Amino acid sequence: MEEQTKSPVDEGAAEGARLDASSRTPDDYPVHTEIPLRWSDQDIYGHVNNVIHYAMADTAVNGWLIDASGVDIRRLPAVGVVVETGCTYVAELHFPQTLTLGIRLTRRGRTSVVYEIGIFTSDQALAAVVRFVHVYVDQVSRRPAAIPPEIETALAQLSEPDTA
Amino acid sequence: MEEQTKSPVDEGAAEGARLDASSRTPDDYPVHTEIPLRWSDQDIYGHVNNVIHYAMADTAVNGWLIDASGVDIRRLPAVGVVVETGCTYVAELHFPQTLTLGIRLTRRGRTSVVYEIGIFTSDQALAAVVRFVHVYVDQVSRRPAAIPPEIETALAQLSEPDTA
Amino acid sequence: MEEQTKSPVDEGAAEGARLDASSRTPDDYPVHTEIPLRWSDQDIYGHVNNVIHYAMADTAVNGWLIDASGVDIRRLPAVGVVVETGCTYVAELHFPQTLTLGIRLTRRGRTSVVYEIGIFTSDQALAAVVRFVHVYVDQVSRRPAAIPPEIETALAQLSEPDTA
Amino acid sequence: MEEQTKSPVDEGAAEGARLDASSRTPDDYPVHTEIPLRWSDQDIYGHVNNVIHYAMADTAVNGWLIDASGVDIRRLPAVGVVVETGCTYVAELHFPQTLTLGIRLTRRGRTSVVYEIGIFTSDQALAAVVRFVHVYVDQVSRRPAAIPPEIETALAQLSEPDTA
Repeated sequence: MEEQTKSPVDEGAAEGARLDASSRTPDDYPVHTEIPLRWSDQDIYGHVNNVIHYAMADTAVNGWLIDASGVDIRRLPAVGVVVETGCTYVAELHFPQTLTLGIRLTRRGRTSVVYEIGIFTSDQALAAVVRFVHVYVDQVSRRPAAIPPEIETALAQLSEPDTA
Repeated sequence: MEEQTKSPVDEGAAEGARLDASSRTPDDYPVHTEIPLRWSDQDIYGHVNNVIHYAMADTAVNGWLIDASGVDIRRLPAVGVVVETGCTYVAELHFPQTLTLGIRLTRRGRTSVVYEIGIFTSDQALAAVVRFVHVYVDQVSRRPAAIPPEIETALAQLSEPDTA
Repeated sequence: MEEQTKSPVDEGAAEGARLDASSRTPDDYPVHTEIPLRWSDQDIYGHVNNVIHYAMADTAVNGWLIDASGVDIRRLPAVGVVVETGCTYVAELHFPQTLTLGIRLTRRGRTSVVYEIGIFTSDQALAAVVRFVHVYVDQVSRRPAAIPPEIETALAQLSEPDTA
Repeated sequence: MEEQTKSPVDEGAAEGARLDASSRTPDDYPVHTEIPLRWSDQDIYGHVNNVIHYAMADTAVNGWLIDASGVDIRRLPAVGVVVETGCTYVAELHFPQTLTLGIRLTRRGRTSVVYEIGIFTSDQALAAVVRFVHVYVDQVSRRPAAIPPEIETALAQLSEPDTA
């Protein structure tokens, strides 16, 4: 197995991804939401479990979409299904604390949207960067469908920082 | 914002990642574990929520490490902290069902390990591929530390498929 | 505040409830299901968090109902809504371990069902007893409705131990 | 099985418990905390799953204890272990929404505390009443221990409404 060679390269790769993420500040995100940690978010190591970051990012994106679109996105003919997610963890999180989550668009296609969600501590230090890929599918056929106009309108609010 | 151009490229990229993942079968993984779905894994769309795949992968890896190392990995001087995770979702999952999770190593360094976890339905169809990057840190100082020998011994059991 | 008096009575009351629960064995339940613990079930105290017992009991009851009724209970005109739950914790639970959950009926009315779920360790020691009260409501009007015949048929399978 | 008789009594009993709980208002609780719902709190029926109420009550009580005691309650020589919980559900909850949770003491002994947590919608309507019984145990021996003085001090802040 070639990866078994204990070269510093593989660690450097992971490190590289982390450094990139480390440069984010709340100002890099046009939209913000606050989410307090819950007791059950902590795991046996006394910090927030890696799974929780996704639950919070999912909440931030869907909560914002409901608010910004003004409609119940769960009842539109096409709904956003998650096809890919990823997270780079920068710092451990501890309960109790209210986090700030920032949302920005990193890509928008005809049927798909890629969000980046930055998770910041109550001191505004970066804790993690989450990536969510939504593909819109017809609620019944489950086949890819164009992004609904209500969602397009909401997404327009996220686009400004990238044009600047 | 260049990504705003509704080119088929961005969707192709997501599609490419999904096709690659789609080629996995349980035989690609040297170790397997069974995890039944829970009622609470379902979300408002009637399928398993994207967050749950990470909770199951975390369970598969840590449960296997405890079993294969023969020690309580939670009490070793160095513990594996998750610094990066990712998931490609191939098919929706529905309760009730017992899933098969396969584990393989994709990379091993001096202080870090990268696992790939394949999630298969009860019919052995691929549902998702999860990637977990563990970096070992000293329990007290939280600084990177060499992978403990007990973990190295366990990891040796995962290495065979790649040498074949 | 009268409860502030440090009498042994209040502790005796809690103790009484626990002793009662302690007498249960798997044989007290006509139906059993196995649920392995997950890594995320553990909390900061290194044991399974009190919330998880309800998630497992919910899984046991609904999974059994789907299996025993032969229908997708989520699509019947009336669905069981939880109006009351309770749990007495007898022993701490630790990951990894596959638990046995036993289900019995403690009460059945025209529109409601009360289940008792016993949670046992892999050594068949009692860990907790959960109580679930389901009231059937019309999916649309959300008003109480008679228990659907498919559910009645399933419930009949739980009634034998009490007639013995 | 005597409970099989379809008398209205058993449903009346459940109803009685619910009516009692229904009389609560936020003013019945000396301490309040706000918890926003998360996307993953919703289940397949489109409402908040019954398990989540416990996760929120656990968060409210432990978060308040950390704040009111001024110490990290997780590191005291004696910690509160949950020996009994219960919940009466009064109204369904829907995402997105920020809930108000009220905390009051219903009983305090030498080694145990019983909390009642009222869960209110953003319109201050009662959604559920949760009951938590904590027994303090020595972190090492796991045997019952006196409530630590830091916790006693915090609990004193909860006692006023009952003396009124």
